[in-house]
Order: sequence, then C-alpha cells, then structure tokens
Amino acid sequence: MTILWTIGDINGIGPEIILKSFMKLERGEQFVVVGSFKVLQHYVDVLSLPVQLKRIKNIEAISTMDAAQKVLPVLDVGKSIRLTQGKVSASAGELAMMAIERATTLCLMKRADAMVTAPIHKEAISKAGYSFSGHTDYITYLCGSDFSQMMLCDRQSKLKVVLATVHVPVSKVSALVRQDGIEKSIVAMAESLAKDFAVQDPRIAVLALNPHASDGGVIGNEEQLTLEPQIKKLQKNYRVEGPFASDGFFGTASYNAFDAVLAMYHDQGLIPFKMLAFETGVNVTMGLPIVRTSPDHGTAFDIAGKGIASEASFIEATLMACEIARARQMQNEEGQ
Amino acid sequence: MTILWTIGDINGIGPEIILKSFMKLERGEQFVVVGSFKVLQHYVDVLSLPVQLKRIKNIEAISTMDAAQKVLPVLDVGKSIRLTQGKVSASAGELAMMAIERATTLCLMKRADAMVTAPIHKEAISKAGYSFSGHTDYITYLCGSDFSQMMLCDRQSKLKVVLATVHVPVSKVSALVRQDGIEKSIVAMAESLAKDFAVQDPRIAVLALNPHASDGGVIGNEEQLTLEPQIKKLQKNYRVEGPFASDGFFGTASYNAFDAVLAMYHDQGLIPFKMLAFETGVNVTMGLPIVRTSPDHGTAFDIAGKGIASEASFIEATLMACEIARARQMQNEEGQ
Repeated sequence: MTILWTIGDINGIGPEIILKSFMKLERGEQFVVVGSFKVLQHYVDVLSLPVQLKRIKNIEAISTMDAAQKVLPVLDVGKSIRLTQGKVSASAGELAMMAIERATTLCLMKRADAMVTAPIHKEAISKAGYSFSGHTDYITYLCGSDFSQMMLCDRQSKLKVVLATVHVPVSKVSALVRQDGIEKSIVAMAESLAKDFAVQDPRIAVLALNPHASDGGVIGNEEQLTLEPQIKKLQKNYRVEGPFASDGFFGTASYNAFDAVLAMYHDQGLIPFKMLAFETGVNVTMGLPIVRTSPDHGTAFDIAGKGIASEASFIEATLMACEIARARQMQNEEGQ
Repeated sequence: MTILWTIGDINGIGPEIILKSFMKLERGEQFVVVGSFKVLQHYVDVLSLPVQLKRIKNIEAISTMDAAQKVLPVLDVGKSIRLTQGKVSASAGELAMMAIERATTLCLMKRADAMVTAPIHKEAISKAGYSFSGHTDYITYLCGSDFSQMMLCDRQSKLKVVLATVHVPVSKVSALVRQDGIEKSIVAMAESLAKDFAVQDPRIAVLALNPHASDGGVIGNEEQLTLEPQIKKLQKNYRVEGPFASDGFFGTASYNAFDAVLAMYHDQGLIPFKMLAFETGVNVTMGLPIVRTSPDHGTAFDIAGKGIASEASFIEATLMACEIARARQMQNEEGQ
C-alpha cells in the first residue's frame, strides 16, 4: 500500500513529525513524502535523525527496493524555498497547498491508497492567495465533492465523534443546528462506518444540544423541535438513538455502546474526545472518494525545529489511513 | 460535629442512600436524619438493613450514647405520610421541604454544623405549593442570603468546577455571560476556597465560551469583549487566568494546576466533571452562612426501593461537609 504524507507548513512541526513517524513505523507500507526534499534533508541534518531520503520527481520513480532498504522517497513539488521556522510565510503556505494538490490528484488517480496531511497554517495559505479555510475545504474542492465532514477517531478508546457544527461561536450553534439538522451527518457517519471501518448497521448516538437534554422542553426546545423528529425519521433506515444529555453520556461511558457519536458543537465533542484520546486522536475526512486522515493538532510554531514535537498523533493518523484504505480495498474486491 | 441529613423525596432513593451511608461511615461524627422515622424504618425493614433508628422530637434529644451505640436518630418533621415509591406526590414534596427548612434553621442556630441534602423532586415540591426551583434557591431564601452558587467538587481528582450559567438553553448562554459577567462567580470562588478549603490566594482558571477561545475573535468575540477585560480587572486582587480553550484545557489536564475552574455553561463543566468524578462528585453551595453539600445525582425514581442505589456520592457529600465545617471551625477559632 502506498501512503502519501503531505509536508504541511514547513515552518511548523510537520517535517519533524513525518521523519520521526517514519523511524517508528513498521516497514510494511510504502510511505512517500510529498513536499520538499531540501527541507526534509535540512531537518534530518539539524535533528541528527538516522533517516535516508531519496528525491523523486514522480511517483513511478519509487522502487520496491526503497521500502526494504528503509529509504524514504520525497516527491518534490514547487520551487525551492527558504525556511523561516516558527514564522508565517506565504511561500510555505504555497508549498503546503501544492503538496496537498499533488497528493489528492495521485489518490484520485489511484497511484496512491491514502494521504495523511501534516498541519498547515491558515494565515500562511491565506497569504499565499488561497481562499480555502483549510485542508478539508481544499481537498473536498479538488475531489469535486460537494460535501465532506470530519470524524474524530481514536483507535485506542474506539471513540468516534462527529461535530454537527464546528468552528462557530456558541451563540450561533442553536440556529445552525435548527437550520442544517442532523440528517446529512448521520448518513455520512453510517456510510463511513460501513465503508471505512467495516461496521455494518452501525449504532449512532446523538447528543442533546441543551443541558439535561432540555428536561422535556424546560431548558430550550431544539430537542423537541429538531433532534427528536429527525432521529425518529432516520430510525427507519439507521440505528440512531438520542438525544442524550451529554454530561451523563460521557460520565457513564455510554459511548462504549455506540460505534460513533454526533455532538452538536465543537467543545461538546472535543472536551471528551481530547480527555480520552489526547495524543492518539486523529481526524478522518468522511464523504470523499479518497482516503484522507490527519493528526489532531496544529503547526505548533512555538516548538518548531526543536526536536521535541510528539509524532504520536501522526503515527496514529497513518495507521488509521492504512486501516481505512485496506477496508475499502477489501470491499472493492468483494464487490467484484 | 453534628451533621444533618435531610431525607429528600421519600419516593426516590434518598432514604436508602442515607441508611447505606450510615452503615459505611466511621462513627466519628453525630449524624441525624431530618425527615420521617416511619419512612426510614420502612426502608430498614424492606431492605433488611442492620441499622437501629431512634425517633427524636428535637435535636437536644440526641444523647452522646447514640453515636457510640451506632444508633441513628431521626428528627420527625411534618405529619405521617403514605409512600408512593417511584411516583410524584405533593405530600412527599412537602415533607422534603419541611425537612430542609428545619435543617437550615438548626444550622443557622448553630445547633448543627452542616447539612447534606438527599435529592428532591421538582415536580413534587411544585405540587406541594412551593415556588422555589430547587434546594439551593430555598436554602438561600431561608438563610436570608441574596446570592449563592453551586461548586462541583471531587475529593479524589481535586477538581472543583463552578458554572457561570447553569440550567439555561445553549442559545441563551452568550447573552447571559455578557450580561452577568464572571466577577461575582470569581469572588465567590475565591472566598469559598479560602474559607471552606483553606486555600489562601487560590489559582482560578476561566474557560473560554467559544471553540479555540475564539481564535483571536474569529469565532465569536465574548472572549475579547467580556472575559478578557474582566479577568484583567480581577487580576488586581485575584490569581485568575484565562480564558482557556476548554477542549485543550481538559485534554492536557491543565486543571491540575488550578484550585478551581469557572466554566461558561452546564455541559462544558459537567462533561469533564462527570468523566473524572462520576460517583464521587458532590455539590457545595457557596455564598451561604451555613455549610451545605449534596450528592451529584437526582431522586432516581426508577430504582427507588430496589436496594440497588449507590450511596457513593452521598458519602462523599457527607465527608465533604465534615471537611468544610471543620475548616470553618478552625478559622473561627484562629480568628478569636
């Protein structure tokens, strides 16, 4: 299996965690960095890492010898650029986006089985002239998809969380939940669980928006007006339950009885997720024709180049990408 | 030390957890139930518990022999009433409130050192003609106080959480936070930590309202407009820090560096609290002249009388009440 690692923002911890992950991962798969040979070689030298790189111009240049000989191929994209560690730069933003574009294309063309993206910096990509709010938007656009959604997954606790609303102020959550509802999310979750995790007829929990799940309409009414009717409708085709009061749901570890959980807003899903999976949590993008995962952290400009960044989440993201790619492959084979 | 246990709603698990707690607690303190001898004796018989009860008419009837002989005195209040296990009844609501009134008065008169309240049922007290929304409102009124606030405490994880808004819909949280601010809460927390927990100059964390603490105003602006200016002002007199993005705060266990945490809304504080302290969490009412704690659960009508209710949280609430009463006692002695 060929797994592409996009380099991310080279002024952050991306190159470092890629190299450290390569050193720790078993050599069963063919890993390829999409980015800059020169930058990676710089980090190899500065951090004194025992990694041998090989510059390649296209994916066909990978030889079967590379994996066996523990050589890490680097697919060069874009022109050579200057490192400005810990600082925002337009050229780093551009390189990060070019790497994403190349990796997405290679996955779409089935020259690779999955992509794992090292973190990018929003300000840098904006300075480079891109109007996408981040990775997921750009990859969704490149894939020609009109919908995608993040699923937070933790292989160790088995917790999978999807957010009905993501980076929006708390004051706007209620209106958004009422407007968008939960149907699209539930369908995407059921499909991803079946296709990516081989869970047929998955059991999905929906969290309530309000405290005590509104106590029968006493504390808000989004449960009665939006969530309950939609859950009832979805139950004709899916095993969906809820809305559950979120504090009790996590306090009693009720998530263990479900394959995935739909939270209504960012911190409702992320507080428990990070408590259960701080270093092992990863993002999986649902709804795309390709397999894409990413670690659950940012560029960490403050510790860039210091050799102290943890590669744990990037390794988990890579293992998760392998797992999903394998699940899809098996289903394709069965389908043939 | 004399600790009063109010019986709570007799159709719920209150009487059972009181009896079970009495069996497990060390006999260092004098425990007294305020409620109904007949009801408690019924639960002793039905559940075959080895507890000897003693009916008393007033608190002076407790003899020093009771504690030594492992006898549990029950202070009868109100008239004899019929049990309707698992069902709402006005007379049970009335008894529960009369017990609270008597216990509060005894604490105010310093005939007792603290009260621990078994859960009551909101519908039952409403049917009994009381317009208070619950325990805390009623006790605050009886004490003649104009402010009180709940602090969730866990003796094991040491986590202490206060909620800036409690039982309000998510859609109203932002307006309430902007209107009420955090100053009153922070002052109450600092005072309670000093007086009840002997923590001088406590370190208090304030959570952000929005995801990523608004990312510098990109995701909402309550952090910039309300929280940051108020924190800055409070820092002249208190060690307050924040606003912290709540997912990272709990994911990295940053609460360990603080004596207490102010959450902006119910589930933001209760999800992590219940995950860390599901059976050992208790409520402490800040801002009252008396010591009052309660367990972190409700009447549990569905399992009333079955003998399967857990007394863990009630025991913790009792131990916490003793701890706080002792801390206040010591400070009074030092002050004299």
